[in-house]
Amino acid sequence: MFRTKTNGELRLSDAGTQVTLAGWVQRTRKFGGMTFVDLRDRYGITQLVFNEEYDAALCEQANRLGREFVIQVEGKVSERSNKNPNLPTGDIEIIVSRLTVLNESLTPPFTIEDESDGGDDLRMKYRYLDIRRNPVRRNLELRHKFAFEVRRYLDQQGFLEIETPILVNSTPEGARDFVVPSRMNPGQFYALPQSPQTLKQLCMVAGIDRYFQICKCFRDEDLRADRQPEFTQIDCEMSFVEQEDILQMFEGMSRHLFKTLLGIDIPTLPRMTWADAMKYYGSDKPDTRFGMEFVELKNHQPDNASRERVESLFPEGFTVFDSAAYIGAICCEGQAVLTRKQIDQLTDFVKRPQIGAKGLVYARVQEDGSVKSSVDKFYGAETLEALRDKMQAKAGDLILILSGEDAMKVRKQLCELRLEMGSRMGLRAKDKFSCLWVIDFPMYEWSDEEQRLMAMHHPFTSPKPEDIPLLDTDPASVRANAYDMVINGVEVGGGSIRIHDAKLQQKIFEILGFTPEQAQLKFGFLMNAFKFGAPPHGGLAYGLDRFVSLFAGLDSIRDCIAFPKNNSGRDVMLDAPGELDPSQLEELQLQVNLRQD
Amino acid sequence: MFRTKTNGELRLSDAGTQVTLAGWVQRTRKFGGMTFVDLRDRYGITQLVFNEEYDAALCEQANRLGREFVIQVEGKVSERSNKNPNLPTGDIEIIVSRLTVLNESLTPPFTIEDESDGGDDLRMKYRYLDIRRNPVRRNLELRHKFAFEVRRYLDQQGFLEIETPILVNSTPEGARDFVVPSRMNPGQFYALPQSPQTLKQLCMVAGIDRYFQICKCFRDEDLRADRQPEFTQIDCEMSFVEQEDILQMFEGMSRHLFKTLLGIDIPTLPRMTWADAMKYYGSDKPDTRFGMEFVELKNHQPDNASRERVESLFPEGFTVFDSAAYIGAICCEGQAVLTRKQIDQLTDFVKRPQIGAKGLVYARVQEDGSVKSSVDKFYGAETLEALRDKMQAKAGDLILILSGEDAMKVRKQLCELRLEMGSRMGLRAKDKFSCLWVIDFPMYEWSDEEQRLMAMHHPFTSPKPEDIPLLDTDPASVRANAYDMVINGVEVGGGSIRIHDAKLQQKIFEILGFTPEQAQLKFGFLMNAFKFGAPPHGGLAYGLDRFVSLFAGLDSIRDCIAFPKNNSGRDVMLDAPGELDPSQLEELQLQVNLRQD
Repeated sequence: MFRTKTNGELRLSDAGTQVTLAGWVQRTRKFGGMTFVDLRDRYGITQLVFNEEYDAALCEQANRLGREFVIQVEGKVSERSNKNPNLPTGDIEIIVSRLTVLNESLTPPFTIEDESDGGDDLRMKYRYLDIRRNPVRRNLELRHKFAFEVRRYLDQQGFLEIETPILVNSTPEGARDFVVPSRMNPGQFYALPQSPQTLKQLCMVAGIDRYFQICKCFRDEDLRADRQPEFTQIDCEMSFVEQEDILQMFEGMSRHLFKTLLGIDIPTLPRMTWADAMKYYGSDKPDTRFGMEFVELKNHQPDNASRERVESLFPEGFTVFDSAAYIGAICCEGQAVLTRKQIDQLTDFVKRPQIGAKGLVYARVQEDGSVKSSVDKFYGAETLEALRDKMQAKAGDLILILSGEDAMKVRKQLCELRLEMGSRMGLRAKDKFSCLWVIDFPMYEWSDEEQRLMAMHHPFTSPKPEDIPLLDTDPASVRANAYDMVINGVEVGGGSIRIHDAKLQQKIFEILGFTPEQAQLKFGFLMNAFKFGAPPHGGLAYGLDRFVSLFAGLDSIRDCIAFPKNNSGRDVMLDAPGELDPSQLEELQLQVNLRQD
Repeated sequence: MFRTKTNGELRLSDAGTQVTLAGWVQRTRKFGGMTFVDLRDRYGITQLVFNEEYDAALCEQANRLGREFVIQVEGKVSERSNKNPNLPTGDIEIIVSRLTVLNESLTPPFTIEDESDGGDDLRMKYRYLDIRRNPVRRNLELRHKFAFEVRRYLDQQGFLEIETPILVNSTPEGARDFVVPSRMNPGQFYALPQSPQTLKQLCMVAGIDRYFQICKCFRDEDLRADRQPEFTQIDCEMSFVEQEDILQMFEGMSRHLFKTLLGIDIPTLPRMTWADAMKYYGSDKPDTRFGMEFVELKNHQPDNASRERVESLFPEGFTVFDSAAYIGAICCEGQAVLTRKQIDQLTDFVKRPQIGAKGLVYARVQEDGSVKSSVDKFYGAETLEALRDKMQAKAGDLILILSGEDAMKVRKQLCELRLEMGSRMGLRAKDKFSCLWVIDFPMYEWSDEEQRLMAMHHPFTSPKPEDIPLLDTDPASVRANAYDMVINGVEVGGGSIRIHDAKLQQKIFEILGFTPEQAQLKFGFLMNAFKFGAPPHGGLAYGLDRFVSLFAGLDSIRDCIAFPKNNSGRDVMLDAPGELDPSQLEELQLQVNLRQD
């Protein structure tokens, strides 16, 4: 070993002992005849001291050290006169007697400090330097512990981690596959798994009973802000279970993770139906760190969420509301103080194309309980007071109202507004956690693009037994035995009970518009396997990157990934992807045919 | 849950309790008015009893059950009159009061028994049924535990599991890469990692200090018997270490694995130089479960293994020996009883093209100590007795001798013969383990194909400091700080101390025949990273599949892989690889150009 101790472990009780340390030069300071060097490694920082009076040559050597030089020192642990209470090793310093430069360093392109001066692009290009920074390294440490605790919990519950292959065939339904040409089978391609969904179901057919895997999954999608072409999934499946068993098992896992990694005892997870989540939060992943639930002021449109017809709170008069099929509102506590300008900003916010609202109606509850609104001229005080009462608004509260012809669209707009207000009001602290299950998802959602019903989860999801008769009469209203775990407005995981009955599966394929031949072609190997005694089974999968990001309080999953890709799917550090040698293409019997556009 | 207990847990102490079980029908037997059903799940087998007298309809239902039907039963645990001591649940049976068929099954194409009637191809096609068999399932259970214990040990030693990307760029040196066309970067390709070698070295530059990862690696090689295009590696790297630290750390890991998984205390691992391994076993992965070391009877050829010139034991007379540069022998204890026919078989064995010896000379030590040999007519009794003494052969022993012009070739032949004799003599029991380190590998080996020195491990391997001067004068003789862990003749892992000095690295590239431009092109990102303070570091990687196979006593790594590929790289269960939709190729701007041959 090049060291006897790390830079994080020496304490006052070690004073007087002789040690050898190694690490990187964080910084050097000259102070009178003394030179101080902060020596850094993964475990911490230790101060080194060189005294010109005692050993001028050694001190001179220290003065020549640059930032990020790798050095080894021998010396004696000594009590500091000027202690640093912010550093675990702050009570001591090392009086150095020998210094060896193990490796020099160019000046790094950004500072290796908690707050760095490097932009994102630079940090990614020199990711190996970025990871030297405490915040990034801590995220990777957390990720390691997180995965380890997942494994510990699942192992204790009798799950087996089964590695499924990466070189598979095209995954049915879903995003685009990455493909891999096979040299040994010319003209044929493997696909990288979008998830091990079918393989884990085969594990259940195989009698594995409890399967899990922390594994890489791949999707060749146009990358949005927080997507990566390769990501990591905690993939789980159990046999002989009902939905309740899965919810219990994985609520237990989350409890274990919160407790062991963050020291937090989370309460029993509330369960919210998908219909309620849409109705009260306009989202299937509601952020329940704060209330501000939607109040429906008018809902004339029958939809999945609610089949009742509600009368409008507003009498005729304001054409926007008159023609709306849906009017929804939130009550923002104490926000009546918002200026006209601030409310205009909110109006601009909801009118942005990404959100798409036509406008924003507001109502302030005054100190005396009276209501002042942007629609004063259309409604009498009585209506506005009815509004106030319906919203359970108090003096000083601000009511924000959106309306439109498509209830689901308005709900999504109102959801964005609610989240924005939550953020502005400081109700979305990253160290506060609110977890829940969203259950009873619809089996299908209508695709405008494909002009057909699509599986909301995937085509193996089981309908709720009581809704099976509706498959024939009103498939769009059938609910699934599907569930998502949502934390702080993030879907960290989701899954379903699967269909294990071949006939029911066939019916579902029909509804999804597959001919028996297409179904056989796409899902044949799974359907064939199911003929040999498939047990009832179900499971779920977590996005590890997201789950860890949430624990780490990160805005992006990137910073809990050691070597992430950018929005063009490039690894700028490795400079991947790259061009192939012509001989490689020839061996693969492939030709690149770039489009002229 | 569809069950209150598994099929492996009920004992006599449970008698009288009411239980619900679920699982697969292993078999049914009718016996008088009784029907017995063996119900199986991952955890075991429980006997169910149906009595025609008590409930004829239920019994009739049971009689209709087919093999591998999935059923659920309710019943009472009852003491068996006819106990089965071979089954943990053999003291009890279930008097069934309710039977539900959860899923029917076609008759499986092979029996789900420990010894199956399915051939390899059939078993692979229906792998989900094969895994229901105890031996296969047990291998997967062992693999799970093995990986878990690796993680537990390394976590305790402060290692962080860092996930490195799967979509990378071409790995320098080594086998062919699998490549992945990038749709977002048309004409460019990712490569799948042959190993995370360079990325783990970047982790060391990044200050991770102790890294590991259990990860998939990919090699597009023509598959030999026991190779898979994707395989799993336990990949490890440490900073600020010397070879000794790595050997200690991973010897500790092996000790932990043997102890926790097999209950075996392994002794301190002996260390054997590569030169000795070649000299005494003709292999860099000697099977040390048994002795039978080579004795050199003549070695006139200076080579890596030995620079001394040894005189021949044999006087001139037998032209084969006279012209040989090397004569080596093994002494097989008690094998003088082999018949002439058996020895002819051995001769045929070493003359097979895969081994390629010209012939085999033998000498039997008789009961009276005299020696009878196939070369009696060339040598006097004195010579043969000198042979006997040199071989330390006793009465009843058989001496087998190979010779030839190329010492290394003959050694490899003799190695095969030794292993064959070891097997025949029962010295290679699969439940006996002999572990060692092979150290001091040569830095380079000559490639006849490439007509240049090639890196024996990889180009980042550090030479032994004392051999660095030889880089200029005799590079072929330079030894590396490289090491392999060998168990029972299998290389389970290997690694090296890496070069962290940019100048030394450059010199090594030169010796390997890279121009500075080529080196920059191939290894530039790593060499650039090393300019920013690379710490001294080293590591190793284990082949998880092989390591687990060894623990499980398997002949092939396939049976510890859930879904392996065959020798053509096909997954016959998934039927992968397959053809792409023309639209997929078009999106990737690729064209398949099959050669006409």
